[in-house]
Amino acid sequence: MEFLTGRKEKEVLELKSLLSYGKTGQEVKVNGAVMNIRNMGDIAFIILRKRDGVLQTVFEKGVTKAELSQLKEETFVEVTGFVEPEERAPHGVELRLTGVRILSRPEAPVPIAVSKWKMGASLEARLDMRPLTLRNVRERARFKIEEGIARAFREFLQGEGFTEIHTPKIGARGAEGGANVFKLDYFHRPAVLAQSPQFYKQMMVGVFDRVMEIGPVFRAEKHNTKRHLNEYTGLDFEMGYIDDFTDIMAMETGFLQHMVSLLRTEYGQELGLLRAELPKVDEIPCIAFTQAKELAAEKYGTVIKNPYDLEPEEEHLIGRYFKEEYGADFVFVTHYPSKKRPFYAMDDPEDPRFTRSFDLLFRGLEVTTGGQRIHDYRELLAKIEKRGMDTEGMDDYLNTFKYGMPPHGGLGIGLERMTMQLLGEENVREVSLFPRDMSRLVP
Amino acid sequence: MEFLTGRKEKEVLELKSLLSYGKTGQEVKVNGAVMNIRNMGDIAFIILRKRDGVLQTVFEKGVTKAELSQLKEETFVEVTGFVEPEERAPHGVELRLTGVRILSRPEAPVPIAVSKWKMGASLEARLDMRPLTLRNVRERARFKIEEGIARAFREFLQGEGFTEIHTPKIGARGAEGGANVFKLDYFHRPAVLAQSPQFYKQMMVGVFDRVMEIGPVFRAEKHNTKRHLNEYTGLDFEMGYIDDFTDIMAMETGFLQHMVSLLRTEYGQELGLLRAELPKVDEIPCIAFTQAKELAAEKYGTVIKNPYDLEPEEEHLIGRYFKEEYGADFVFVTHYPSKKRPFYAMDDPEDPRFTRSFDLLFRGLEVTTGGQRIHDYRELLAKIEKRGMDTEGMDDYLNTFKYGMPPHGGLGIGLERMTMQLLGEENVREVSLFPRDMSRLVP
Repeated sequence: MEFLTGRKEKEVLELKSLLSYGKTGQEVKVNGAVMNIRNMGDIAFIILRKRDGVLQTVFEKGVTKAELSQLKEETFVEVTGFVEPEERAPHGVELRLTGVRILSRPEAPVPIAVSKWKMGASLEARLDMRPLTLRNVRERARFKIEEGIARAFREFLQGEGFTEIHTPKIGARGAEGGANVFKLDYFHRPAVLAQSPQFYKQMMVGVFDRVMEIGPVFRAEKHNTKRHLNEYTGLDFEMGYIDDFTDIMAMETGFLQHMVSLLRTEYGQELGLLRAELPKVDEIPCIAFTQAKELAAEKYGTVIKNPYDLEPEEEHLIGRYFKEEYGADFVFVTHYPSKKRPFYAMDDPEDPRFTRSFDLLFRGLEVTTGGQRIHDYRELLAKIEKRGMDTEGMDDYLNTFKYGMPPHGGLGIGLERMTMQLLGEENVREVSLFPRDMSRLVP
Repeated sequence: MEFLTGRKEKEVLELKSLLSYGKTGQEVKVNGAVMNIRNMGDIAFIILRKRDGVLQTVFEKGVTKAELSQLKEETFVEVTGFVEPEERAPHGVELRLTGVRILSRPEAPVPIAVSKWKMGASLEARLDMRPLTLRNVRERARFKIEEGIARAFREFLQGEGFTEIHTPKIGARGAEGGANVFKLDYFHRPAVLAQSPQFYKQMMVGVFDRVMEIGPVFRAEKHNTKRHLNEYTGLDFEMGYIDDFTDIMAMETGFLQHMVSLLRTEYGQELGLLRAELPKVDEIPCIAFTQAKELAAEKYGTVIKNPYDLEPEEEHLIGRYFKEEYGADFVFVTHYPSKKRPFYAMDDPEDPRFTRSFDLLFRGLEVTTGGQRIHDYRELLAKIEKRGMDTEGMDDYLNTFKYGMPPHGGLGIGLERMTMQLLGEENVREVSLFPRDMSRLVP
C-alpha cells in the first residue's frame, strides 16, 4: 500500500529561497515561463517569469546544454544553472545556465506584448485577451495587492472576534428590493441573485455577534461607468452590541491601518512595481453629509443642486477638500439622508431626515457604505409601513427581530474600488480579473 | 473636525479576557443574550450566551439593581458584576450581578427550545427557523469548525505560495457543460451560474502559477440526497509545474495536516461541545480505482455492478475497508475511468481508459475531486474532438493553452461535505447556514 505523508519537498527553488539562502556559486534548479529573450550572439539573456518575480538567466553557447532556437516567449521550462551576483539584474543575481528542460511549448506566438512594461493596448483589447494579458508582471501585481486587501480585512476582523460566514447567493428576494436584481429560474421557481449579504449578515449577529463575509455581489444596474461592475467582490461585516455607529467607523479605521501595514510589509515588491502610494490612515476625518457638501461648494464655487444626494463630482470635490486641508486620503461622510438609505438604516433621533450611517470616500470615491441598523422589531415594522413597502419574502428577516436582536451595525466595502483607488487606476475593470459589465460576459 | 484614529477599546469584556486575565473579585462589565434563567427564589442563575461561550451570572434579590421579571430568553443585556470562582459553572467562574442594563427585548417568546442541549425538532423544522435555531450553542459551533477548515485551507496554501483569486460566478458557459447549470437573463443575453471555477483557475495558473479560491458553486442537479446541495462552498486550488498528479494529493495531505492541527489548537471548545473526533492524517492510503472496488467487493462479499463507476455504497465500503485494515479516515482513490471524468482530465498514458486523477474519500464519502489536467494544446483539441464536444464559448480557455501552459493540476473540495464528515453529521444541510436544495430557497 502506498501512502501520502504530506506536502512534497521539491528540489526546484522559488525566487525567495534562491535569494534568501545565498546560493551564490551553487548549481540550482529553477522553473518559470520564458518572458523575454535578448540574443547577443554568443550569449543570450533569458528572463524567466516566476510567481514571485522575474529572474535573469544567461544562455551561453557551448556551455548551456540546450538549443536556444527551441525557446520562445511563453515556453515553460525547468532550468539548471549557477547563481552569480549581477548588479544590473533584477534582485542582483543571475543564473548562468547549464541545462534547459522544456516543460511545454506554445503553439503560436503571443499576439500582444505581454513581456513589455506597458503593453500598449486599449483596456478593451487587454480585457478581451485577459488570460494572456494578466501574465504581464504589472497587470498581475494589481491582483496581489487586491489579495492583500482582502487578506488584511479577514486577518484584522478575525483578531477582533468576527466569524467568517458563507451566505447563499441564490434567494427568493433581494436584500434591497427594487429592480436591480438578476433573475433566474430555480427548479421552475423564480429566484434572484444576492445584491448583498445584508439580511443574512444581520440575522447572524444574533448568532455569532460579529460576522464577516468575502464573496460575490450581483447588481443588475444599468450603469456603464468607470466605477461600476455588475458582479464584484464584497467585503462585508456586521457587529452587535455597538454603542453607536461610530463603532463601525472605528472598526473600519482599524482595518485600514492593518491593511496599510500588511501591504507595506508583505507586498512591497508589487507596490514598487506599480509605484503605488499607501494612503494616510493614522486619523480619518469625519464630517456630516450636509456640512461636507457645503464646505466643498464654498471652497470650489459650485452650486448644490440636490441637498439630499451626493453626486460623483461632489464626492470628488469633498475628497479634494480634505486632501488639501488635512492631507487626508480617506474621509467619513456621515448622516446620509434617510430617503437615500434602505429601510433598515437607523434614523437619527435628533433629526430623522438623516440616518446614523456613513460612506467612506477614498481619494474622492465612495468605497464603503455602512451604518447602524434598526434592531427594534416595532421600529422596523413602523418604518416599513411608513415606506409602504411590500414585505413578501421578508418573514425570516423580520422574525429574527421579533425574537430579539442586539443593537448592531455594519458595512460593505467594494474590494475592486478599494484596490482601484489604492493603485490610482482610472477604471475599476483594471482590478477585476474577469470583469462583468453590461456588455461583457466573457472571458 | 472630528477624527477616527482606530478601533475602540471597550470596557465590556469578552469571555476570553475575563477568563485569562484573572479578574476574580473585580467588578466587570459584560454583554450577552439571556440564554436561560433558573429562578431559585432569592437568587436566580442567568446564563448569558456570548460569542465565545456561555457565562453563568447570579441575580441576587436586594443586591442586583434590576428587576428579574424584565428578563426573558433572548433579552440582550449589558451587565455589571463581580467575578467569582465557581467550580460548577462553565469555565469555573460566575458573575455575581450588581446591575443589568437591557439593550433590547424580544417581542415574542422563542417558539423553539434554542437554549436546550438538543432542540428536539426535526431537521426541516430547524431549517425553517434557521436564523433562530443557529443561536443554539451546538448548532452554531458547527460553523466555527467550518470556518476553521476554510481558514486552514487558506493559511496553508498561502504559505505554499498560492494567490487567492476571485473569479466570476456569472458567465456565458458552464465549465463542465451539460444540463446541470442554472440559467439567468443577463441584460437580455443568456448566461449561466458557475458550476466551478475550473476554467478560470486553470487559466490563472499561467499567470500566478499557484492559485486558490473559496467561493460559491452552483449545481442545478436534480438530486435530493443527504449529501447534495445546489449551492455550496468550494475550496479550489490549481498549481503549475507539477511532476505528476501525486503532487496534488501531497499538497492536499499537507492541508489536511494543517487543518487538524489548527482545529486542535484554536477550535478545541467547539470540538468538545460537538464531541468531534479529529481524523488521522499522518499518512493517507492511496489506491487505484479498480483495485479499491475489488478489495471492497472481496472483503464484504458484494458484486461489482459497474466497473466504470463508484456508487455511494461502494465508497462507503472502501472507507470501511481502509478504516478496518489501516485505521485510516481518509483514502485517495486514483485512476478514475476516463469516461467518468471531464475532457480536461489527463488520461493515463499507460492505460488511457483511466485518468491521472483522484477522489478523496473521508469516512466513506467523496469530499474532493482532483487530478492532473491536459496542458498541451493539441492534446486538448484531440480529446475534445474525440468526444465530439461543442467548443462554443470555449475560445478563451483554449487560447490559453495555445499560448503555452505549464503542466498543472488541482482539486476542488466541498467545504460542507468536509465539515459534515468531520463532525459525523448525517445530513449536509446541518452544516450549511442557509441550505439551498430542490425544495428550499428560504430562509
